[in-house]
Amino acid sequence: MSDAHLSVSEGPGAVLWRLRETAPLVQCITNAVVVNFTANALLAVGAAPIMADVPEEAGECAAFASALLVNLGTPTASQRDAMIEAVTAARAARTPWVLDPVGVGALAMRTDFAQGLLELGPAVIRGNASEILALAAAGPGGRGVDAAHAVDDAVAAAHDLARRTGAVVAVSGPVDAVCEGAGTVRVTGGSALLTKVTGGGCSLGAVVAACVAAADGAGSNGQDAAFAGTVAAHAVYAAASERAAARAEGPGSFATAFLDALAAVEPADVARPERFATAVPA
Amino acid sequence: MSDAHLSVSEGPGAVLWRLRETAPLVQCITNAVVVNFTANALLAVGAAPIMADVPEEAGECAAFASALLVNLGTPTASQRDAMIEAVTAARAARTPWVLDPVGVGALAMRTDFAQGLLELGPAVIRGNASEILALAAAGPGGRGVDAAHAVDDAVAAAHDLARRTGAVVAVSGPVDAVCEGAGTVRVTGGSALLTKVTGGGCSLGAVVAACVAAADGAGSNGQDAAFAGTVAAHAVYAAASERAAARAEGPGSFATAFLDALAAVEPADVARPERFATAVPA
Amino acid sequence: MSDAHLSVSEGPGAVLWRLRETAPLVQCITNAVVVNFTANALLAVGAAPIMADVPEEAGECAAFASALLVNLGTPTASQRDAMIEAVTAARAARTPWVLDPVGVGALAMRTDFAQGLLELGPAVIRGNASEILALAAAGPGGRGVDAAHAVDDAVAAAHDLARRTGAVVAVSGPVDAVCEGAGTVRVTGGSALLTKVTGGGCSLGAVVAACVAAADGAGSNGQDAAFAGTVAAHAVYAAASERAAARAEGPGSFATAFLDALAAVEPADVARPERFATAVPA
Repeated sequence: MSDAHLSVSEGPGAVLWRLRETAPLVQCITNAVVVNFTANALLAVGAAPIMADVPEEAGECAAFASALLVNLGTPTASQRDAMIEAVTAARAARTPWVLDPVGVGALAMRTDFAQGLLELGPAVIRGNASEILALAAAGPGGRGVDAAHAVDDAVAAAHDLARRTGAVVAVSGPVDAVCEGAGTVRVTGGSALLTKVTGGGCSLGAVVAACVAAADGAGSNGQDAAFAGTVAAHAVYAAASERAAARAEGPGSFATAFLDALAAVEPADVARPERFATAVPA
Repeated sequence: MSDAHLSVSEGPGAVLWRLRETAPLVQCITNAVVVNFTANALLAVGAAPIMADVPEEAGECAAFASALLVNLGTPTASQRDAMIEAVTAARAARTPWVLDPVGVGALAMRTDFAQGLLELGPAVIRGNASEILALAAAGPGGRGVDAAHAVDDAVAAAHDLARRTGAVVAVSGPVDAVCEGAGTVRVTGGSALLTKVTGGGCSLGAVVAACVAAADGAGSNGQDAAFAGTVAAHAVYAAASERAAARAEGPGSFATAFLDALAAVEPADVARPERFATAVPA
Repeated sequence: MSDAHLSVSEGPGAVLWRLRETAPLVQCITNAVVVNFTANALLAVGAAPIMADVPEEAGECAAFASALLVNLGTPTASQRDAMIEAVTAARAARTPWVLDPVGVGALAMRTDFAQGLLELGPAVIRGNASEILALAAAGPGGRGVDAAHAVDDAVAAAHDLARRTGAVVAVSGPVDAVCEGAGTVRVTGGSALLTKVTGGGCSLGAVVAACVAAADGAGSNGQDAAFAGTVAAHAVYAAASERAAARAEGPGSFATAFLDALAAVEPADVARPERFATAVPA
């Protein structure tokens, strides 16, 4: 990573500050399981959600949204049509879009569908290690993996995927790895309780979109904003998770406290230098 | 507003009391984002939710439901078919129905669809100022606005819409305006935290439906029940929001406390006279 | 019930322990209202949810899932296709599946659809008294009831249904009745607050599936595992509800505390002998 385009010890706090100043409109086409929690996470952190996922209006929305999330959690035929429509409009309007390849590798239809989406220029791809490995390994018609993998197992694949698509690729886990063609930033901290709340990862994808929009509006262009925003979102989630875990008695109270924490977390906490480590490509 | 059909200082408490006595069955065809929170809000306040939104059974349900909510948040083709089916059956059975025109004005397809629904006799229309302005301004095929407006900006449009459709029209905001052809009641109080919980407004639409059913069952007829129920629902939301805000540390704990408060709020608190102000038509 | 295949005073605790050891993968095809709460309940209790409900992948998923839940709460055409696909694959793979006939008896289309599903060999049927009565009473093309009934009113019908289908049939209520051809176990305790949270019963159906998978993996075969798992799940819900009710101030805080309690509840509490009573067939 070049220090020229992101000061990782200060940048993430600035992105959060700009997000709250600008309240970017984030369109989400996401799964029914997490759509409520995702909208609440966006509201809590300071963004404006619009969950327009119906064909005939998904594209209209993407043309005026600040950013778009495409999440493959429950890809009905109607949602798949809306995704194509929205991504096409987002490209035309230069709206950055984030791909969350939920379950890719485990289920064949969505794996094929995700491969097609890769051709349409996502700004960011965010998934867990197994999903990123599957997405990177599979050519059109290929099959992915269905096992659990560690983040480190997927960093080389993430770099391949980043080089192939031009996207920033984030592998979320106990220590997150945010990869672009030339480097990796690792984001540490957080709480394992987030993995016991459905939508913990999926809502992170939406906050990535919000942070990319915030970074984009600050004058960063294209991939610089995508990288700065993706790192910032992961740091926001780490900081908010820690704050929530200190108040929680279990997964239910953690989810509640996490939304409170997304609203309360300070840029200075998000930007603490010890959250970040850079690394040469694997 | 004529004092003959509603004592605004006492009526809203009585409506809440009757709601809890009778537990009206409220059918909701609403968006995936808020459907869980809406069902929980209805249960908490004392109603019985039935979220039947599938064609081939939506109409059957509307014939025996106490009231029906039609919310345009994520209007899939399947839901649009179910809405037409349910509203048609509701009209035949004299089941009152509430229209929540979410996003009308911002997105064209749902704006056109909402214009068509206006022909089918909603008892109440509840939206924010931008949505009511868009719905009132647009004839068939017209386009609405997509900007944010203050409640006062929409009161004249609400009265136009009320006269055109025969519906009670509620504009929700920091001070709500509930309008019928001849008058306006303003409902004050509440908490801005409700705007940081997705479904804050959408669930209010469902509680409007429950309160209209409760008022209807008390012997009020038609528009009188619609007006009394709509005012009562907005007052219930104001009272419950205040109670929840006193216990909340952020939007997550507010949402939890709000459901507790909907179950706990007393008719006497809902009916406090200082919540209400009447006004001549704009 | 024969003591040979289940020690009701010790078995349920052992099932919970095995569930947490093995984290069974539970596929849910369930309604939009409760899908989030259901996934969170599965995560909290220690299972792994996968809410794959889209045709073209629902069957693929059922072939590798540990158990499958089919819940009729909002049966869209797409979900009905996915249900048939998944159940067919589950049968071929010997994956146990649970039928939750939400709203059967009240709405005709889903009543007919549920009758068809009965031919496809559910391991467990779980519903409230009205749903079980409707499902048992109706032959193909018949109509069910739409009124509320007490659990005891449905025990004879549950036994009929168990004998006709080979499934374990659970009637959930203030005192649950879990019936197989030859006997009934009643599970006592719990909290009425669970009925004020949407998805209280629906998520229990998913935890039944998780417990059946856990019992199945312990070497119990077929119906023995179905019976032991179903009893255990109802006891887990009773124990967790009691724990949550002691911490709750209303339905909102109860829902949060209930997820905490599902994660915290101990096998010894679940297995307390006073939770259970056996009975001869009605």
